[in-house]
Amino acid sequence: MSTSFSDDSLTLHTDLYQINMAETYWADNIHNRKAIFELYFRKTPFGNGFAIFAGLERAIEFINQFRFTESDLSYLRDVLGYEKDFLNYLSTLTFTGSVRSLKEGELVFGNEPIMRVEAPLAQAQLIETALLNIINYQTLIATKAARIKEVIGDQMAMEFGTRRAQEMDAAIWGARAAYIGGFQSTSNTRAGKKFGIPVSGTHAHALVQAYQDEYTAFLKYAKRHKNCVFLVDTYDTLKSGVPNAIKVAKELGDKINFNGIRLDSGDLAYLSKEARKMLDEAGYPDAKIIASNDLDEYTIMHLKGQGAKIDTWGIGTKLITAYDQAALGAVYKLVSIENEDGEMIDTMKISGNPEKVSTPGLKKVYRIINNENQKSEGDYIAFEDESPQEEERLKMFHPVHTYISKYVSDFKAKELHKDIFLNGQLVYKMPKLIDIQQFAKENLNVLWDEYRRSLNPEEYPVDLSQKCWDNKMHQIQSIKEKIKKSNSNMET
Amino acid sequence: MSTSFSDDSLTLHTDLYQINMAETYWADNIHNRKAIFELYFRKTPFGNGFAIFAGLERAIEFINQFRFTESDLSYLRDVLGYEKDFLNYLSTLTFTGSVRSLKEGELVFGNEPIMRVEAPLAQAQLIETALLNIINYQTLIATKAARIKEVIGDQMAMEFGTRRAQEMDAAIWGARAAYIGGFQSTSNTRAGKKFGIPVSGTHAHALVQAYQDEYTAFLKYAKRHKNCVFLVDTYDTLKSGVPNAIKVAKELGDKINFNGIRLDSGDLAYLSKEARKMLDEAGYPDAKIIASNDLDEYTIMHLKGQGAKIDTWGIGTKLITAYDQAALGAVYKLVSIENEDGEMIDTMKISGNPEKVSTPGLKKVYRIINNENQKSEGDYIAFEDESPQEEERLKMFHPVHTYISKYVSDFKAKELHKDIFLNGQLVYKMPKLIDIQQFAKENLNVLWDEYRRSLNPEEYPVDLSQKCWDNKMHQIQSIKEKIKKSNSNMET
Repeated sequence: MSTSFSDDSLTLHTDLYQINMAETYWADNIHNRKAIFELYFRKTPFGNGFAIFAGLERAIEFINQFRFTESDLSYLRDVLGYEKDFLNYLSTLTFTGSVRSLKEGELVFGNEPIMRVEAPLAQAQLIETALLNIINYQTLIATKAARIKEVIGDQMAMEFGTRRAQEMDAAIWGARAAYIGGFQSTSNTRAGKKFGIPVSGTHAHALVQAYQDEYTAFLKYAKRHKNCVFLVDTYDTLKSGVPNAIKVAKELGDKINFNGIRLDSGDLAYLSKEARKMLDEAGYPDAKIIASNDLDEYTIMHLKGQGAKIDTWGIGTKLITAYDQAALGAVYKLVSIENEDGEMIDTMKISGNPEKVSTPGLKKVYRIINNENQKSEGDYIAFEDESPQEEERLKMFHPVHTYISKYVSDFKAKELHKDIFLNGQLVYKMPKLIDIQQFAKENLNVLWDEYRRSLNPEEYPVDLSQKCWDNKMHQIQSIKEKIKKSNSNMET
Repeated sequence: MSTSFSDDSLTLHTDLYQINMAETYWADNIHNRKAIFELYFRKTPFGNGFAIFAGLERAIEFINQFRFTESDLSYLRDVLGYEKDFLNYLSTLTFTGSVRSLKEGELVFGNEPIMRVEAPLAQAQLIETALLNIINYQTLIATKAARIKEVIGDQMAMEFGTRRAQEMDAAIWGARAAYIGGFQSTSNTRAGKKFGIPVSGTHAHALVQAYQDEYTAFLKYAKRHKNCVFLVDTYDTLKSGVPNAIKVAKELGDKINFNGIRLDSGDLAYLSKEARKMLDEAGYPDAKIIASNDLDEYTIMHLKGQGAKIDTWGIGTKLITAYDQAALGAVYKLVSIENEDGEMIDTMKISGNPEKVSTPGLKKVYRIINNENQKSEGDYIAFEDESPQEEERLKMFHPVHTYISKYVSDFKAKELHKDIFLNGQLVYKMPKLIDIQQFAKENLNVLWDEYRRSLNPEEYPVDLSQKCWDNKMHQIQSIKEKIKKSNSNMET
């Protein structure tokens, strides 16, 4: 068996190279230089027009508990061979930096910072991997949930994915992210307990099999669960399941609330229509039809298009694993670093892949809301010392095709980041989960429909200020010149 | 923030319907009837010819710790409204059943039981969701890792996926599963500590950016890390990165072991070939080239086909999320149940989807090894009381296209399940992780090449004994007749 540690911590939940870098900085005595990292992804997932940020709660928890324990330090010493002095430094380390972040439930788009970490260089580096691990997954699932909920509309959406989730954390944090994205319940009881999410569930095929008789199973179940829904596809949905459900409902009459039936296999369009007729004819027009079985936004849209009589949707695998794009590619890039004179210097990464070029400098993100219609004109990234709100006409131009531009006037520039940690102190109070869900819902209202469409939405503008843009071009130029110079030096 | 509980347990990590069913059984006093459930998936993932089982260690840990804590019971009482007597029953519950399972690292195929749980009905039901959650993910990743390793061959494969993993559990249990599937290291330090997996990592782009100068960064890094690998694509791989790596290697000479360079962007085939030339010409033919950047088995195969000069492979996203098929669909089905007379009765689920029909009865799984060549002829599922080893000629026939059959003689019938729990007692000793990896590797040797091919492998035979088959047909028939009879009763 693997080893259990009584003082287990998540602080070692980091890539080894972070520790190697921290050690290099420490040995060179630059570990406490102020560094600014931005966390962002490059492209919204699923070809969706927007993403919904989630992951802040666990990120806060991780940073708050960031501390190397005795067993962590022993491992680093005995197995990985790090030196005593460096380990002494690690042993007293807590996070003393500042973090600004979007609120959970905020809309977020490609190439804009979700989170900004200003901290001593080594600390900022050591927390990178866990932050990405948490935020990449939770944002992915909140986004997938919102995307599915857009298709489901006002009907009920239930998260059913635990058994197919990628291990236990994904099941429960995924349930929470799905709730932020608009789902109304989860099947995972532990997520219900931990997060206060409503839990839902009826019974499985095993109940019917255990009684070896569907009618008996339904009867026994209904006697214990007044508000009952019967799973009708263990043997034959229309010939056995629905008739037995109706039979039990009639027999028990007012003793139960016959809430409906669940379909979990077969053709859901056909079966739901036939079942609806049977329920209506039997005098149960209010009994709901719940459907599950590998559903996602595409299947739901087609089922609705075919007039399926489904009232409630149970979504498992395709939601909890973000099946059609199982990873969000958020990265964490150094944009500014203190030099030996104590000045902050912009920094960037160039790359063979143009989309991987980062944007240097200390920046803020604004959502530009048109005062006339309360819709968003796009997001605007500017330097810390710029004040877009004070401009009469804001020039917004495409960050790749720069000749595409527009001027916006009569707008509100809503700053999106909140202070989370200030010099190591947590200064942010997490809202209630239900308020985060509500916040996400309201945020969607600022988007024009063309950004909310599931298929081929328009690309939402995320624009750099002229100063940010000019600075980026200038930086690229000077790095190129430096390389050229150093090459000609090497050749001579 | 969400609630933390000092007595937190994983026991509530279950779908609500399991608790509803347990309550129904308990109220009807059938909760202690003996039930037999089988856990299996229907199809190997990724179109692969085999899967590698992983997840047993955590499944054992979960079952061993299965106990409702005070806060679990309070939640069930106060929030979900379960009755006191039922909660009293839950409060004393531990797992008292028996579990048989494949060993981790065993090859497994569609429609054969990975695990068999024989336990009091309610208990068997309550552990279902967590077992599926654990085994679905870990088996998926072990299989993906083995599939990628088949293409990588004898070269080194490193798991780099934490930042893109689906939350923290996936990162570390995925690292372990990847190791079982043949990967040699992980970047996750916590996985290294917990499981004893070798950890690997060098430095990131941030190091180069922090020093604002690639040469200085490499120099500082190398002075602290004697065995050094430089990441060369922060600015320009061939014009800056590789020359600076060579420059530092030359300057430091014998003071370091210049182990190589890492490429993380751009065209890996072209860059690796050019970098190889540069390294060779500079007198470093032993310096390795490590590549990463969204690699999977397809990209690796193509890079190799183009003669890329890559020695070591770092695989992240596509492995740790099983990107091209992010979920394994294992299910847990009741195959036998004690009736009121204390007899065990076979049971099955029929379905509108033919592949969802389960196979009833208490069964064992054998691998039929041909004594002549030590290769496997297929797997054979038989009733507990059958003894395939004693048959002179074993008839193996296709479980769908039953007219396809073959006879095997001179074989060894290797039984695949081991006893894990016997009446609640853990009787299995987990092997060392490195031995599990070795076991997986050896298992692959019994497969003919046609089952190991990544693209369109042959379908490995998983056959039912004649008795199992006849019984399944008989069960289907009698369920159908029962439905017919009950329908005609309803009509009259």
